[in-house]
Amino acid sequence: MGERIYNFSAGPAMMPESVLARAAAEMLDWNGSGMSVMEMSHRSKTYAAIFEDVERSLREVMEIPDSHRVLFLQGGATLQFSMVPINLLPRTGRADYAITGEFSKKAFQEGRKVGEVRAAADLSGENFCRIPAQSELALDAGAAYFHYCMNNTIFGTKWPYLPETGDVPLACDMSSCILSEPVDVSRFGLIYAGAQKNMGPAGLTVVILREDLAGAAPASTPGLLDYAALIKSGSMLNTPPTYGVYLLGLVLDWVRSQGGLTAMRQHNLAKAAVLYDALDGSRLFKPSADKGSRSMMNVTFFTGDPELDGRFVKEAAAAGLVTLKGHRAVGGMRASIYNAMPMEGVEKLAAFMREFEKRC
Amino acid sequence: MGERIYNFSAGPAMMPESVLARAAAEMLDWNGSGMSVMEMSHRSKTYAAIFEDVERSLREVMEIPDSHRVLFLQGGATLQFSMVPINLLPRTGRADYAITGEFSKKAFQEGRKVGEVRAAADLSGENFCRIPAQSELALDAGAAYFHYCMNNTIFGTKWPYLPETGDVPLACDMSSCILSEPVDVSRFGLIYAGAQKNMGPAGLTVVILREDLAGAAPASTPGLLDYAALIKSGSMLNTPPTYGVYLLGLVLDWVRSQGGLTAMRQHNLAKAAVLYDALDGSRLFKPSADKGSRSMMNVTFFTGDPELDGRFVKEAAAAGLVTLKGHRAVGGMRASIYNAMPMEGVEKLAAFMREFEKRC
Repeated sequence: MGERIYNFSAGPAMMPESVLARAAAEMLDWNGSGMSVMEMSHRSKTYAAIFEDVERSLREVMEIPDSHRVLFLQGGATLQFSMVPINLLPRTGRADYAITGEFSKKAFQEGRKVGEVRAAADLSGENFCRIPAQSELALDAGAAYFHYCMNNTIFGTKWPYLPETGDVPLACDMSSCILSEPVDVSRFGLIYAGAQKNMGPAGLTVVILREDLAGAAPASTPGLLDYAALIKSGSMLNTPPTYGVYLLGLVLDWVRSQGGLTAMRQHNLAKAAVLYDALDGSRLFKPSADKGSRSMMNVTFFTGDPELDGRFVKEAAAAGLVTLKGHRAVGGMRASIYNAMPMEGVEKLAAFMREFEKRC
Repeated sequence: MGERIYNFSAGPAMMPESVLARAAAEMLDWNGSGMSVMEMSHRSKTYAAIFEDVERSLREVMEIPDSHRVLFLQGGATLQFSMVPINLLPRTGRADYAITGEFSKKAFQEGRKVGEVRAAADLSGENFCRIPAQSELALDAGAAYFHYCMNNTIFGTKWPYLPETGDVPLACDMSSCILSEPVDVSRFGLIYAGAQKNMGPAGLTVVILREDLAGAAPASTPGLLDYAALIKSGSMLNTPPTYGVYLLGLVLDWVRSQGGLTAMRQHNLAKAAVLYDALDGSRLFKPSADKGSRSMMNVTFFTGDPELDGRFVKEAAAAGLVTLKGHRAVGGMRASIYNAMPMEGVEKLAAFMREFEKRC
């Protein structure tokens, strides 16, 4: 086996090494069952116990109140871009969206297919370099929900506050920041996240939904897109992504072993500080996000010279620091430093940046 | 590690042991990359090569013609129950469905939400114990497609022929029989299958679509449910179930090592014959499917005494033959013997049935 490297991919992304080691050890025989978790009937008692344990663990780690249901689904955040308006918009017929990046824009576009959606804020004119202030949000008190994306992977920004929307429920895409720090789940009507950044493998989607919001989808809605039907079936309207849910359980065990979300936040803040300090102290590299809107998970930066950016990405890869190329929409570099990225990886990257700058 | 057991689950189901062993060995470091396949960006060159290899391998194993596109999706067959009518029904505004089990009934019900669908055959009155003959199909020459489920897991039946529908394209749910034998893909407009029986883990769905059939979905269709958009993006409209696709690749390698689909068919016929011979020679156990409609993948049987059925299932489990309980819709027993079930498992079950019968 070769050496494990530091992978700064925006997702799918690094998993804790101990989680992968445990998954490998249990691959042919889970806990004396004589089979892989992947081979278990989703209706079997053995698998049902795993499934319930994972939900319980997620509830404990995120302190999810009883008012909210947890769903383990498929389709990624992208399917939620459609499911959120299909299920929630009929409540009042209108919804608000904050457009702060490519994904929140896609969510808005999918919302438009369903009904009347408004941009309560649109930062596209500023190339999504910052998050709007509360005072900039043009809120509709009659909106069925206010949708936003808490952390924008492509532009390296993050909402530094929870939007105040009165009685309008928050519907939040947390794909790239879930489990990175504590959040007050009771403040949200709906939270969703693709697993492939902080939770597990691509193909698992977690939805946390205030139960009273379900049930408004029209009768023509495909069964699998109806939150009420999914709640009723306990996420088993059809076969769920069983192995992904099991892996999420292993990741949650790891999060707990690290001290839970409060410890995760400290760890993540410290890692991000190493990179932002390096950027703020550099004459060569510039961060692309405004200081007050910086992401703790995705650190985006550039030199201003695309050729030099390309050289940096290439030489970093040769030094075992891979997938640092920025998204094609913005260019430059992006270091995604989710929960599983160790401090050593971040320190090695900061040292490499300094060394590269000296050479240039 | 305990002993691997014989798992007769209808799905998720047994995987070839060599596939699991290879997945475990490659879990922390795929091919010297320093990372798990699960950790790779779906846009990386390394992963793109895996993805393309798997498609190429599936095309070779199934002899998929160039007229057909392969999609790796999420949502299982259940999401296809909706996607098929949303995408294909607008072509003529009407579609035919053969109702031969619970899943084809669900497909029909989802079709009804979309438009005008007719039951070209409905075997519910005979408790789905057989497949209708060609002459029994009430076909509509103006249908946009004819939908059927080739193998019915719950009732243990399988279509013994390819329906002749003239110019009306066949849309077929092959979830529980794909890769079990050669099929002439060119005869189908669309084939879909959840992976969790013969292809890999739950959460991966394979769609094989004649390309000229895509593009009729209305503009209001959620992006992720639009075949044309999925084709255009190469199944990467969003992050695909990357690890599941990799596992499908390992399964396909195994199928090839066994001699491909012709060998699979011989192997599966031989396994099914062992069980049907045991049933035909038994005074205690009765097969539930009509002789001409028997499934090669799911062998359903019963004693007529639910209590005795329960005892059989329990004692078989104690003997290392697990998940033999029939579906709640029919009771009795069901032995699912997909590709990965070895002949030894089937022989052990047949021997156990004889031994049980002697004791009773």
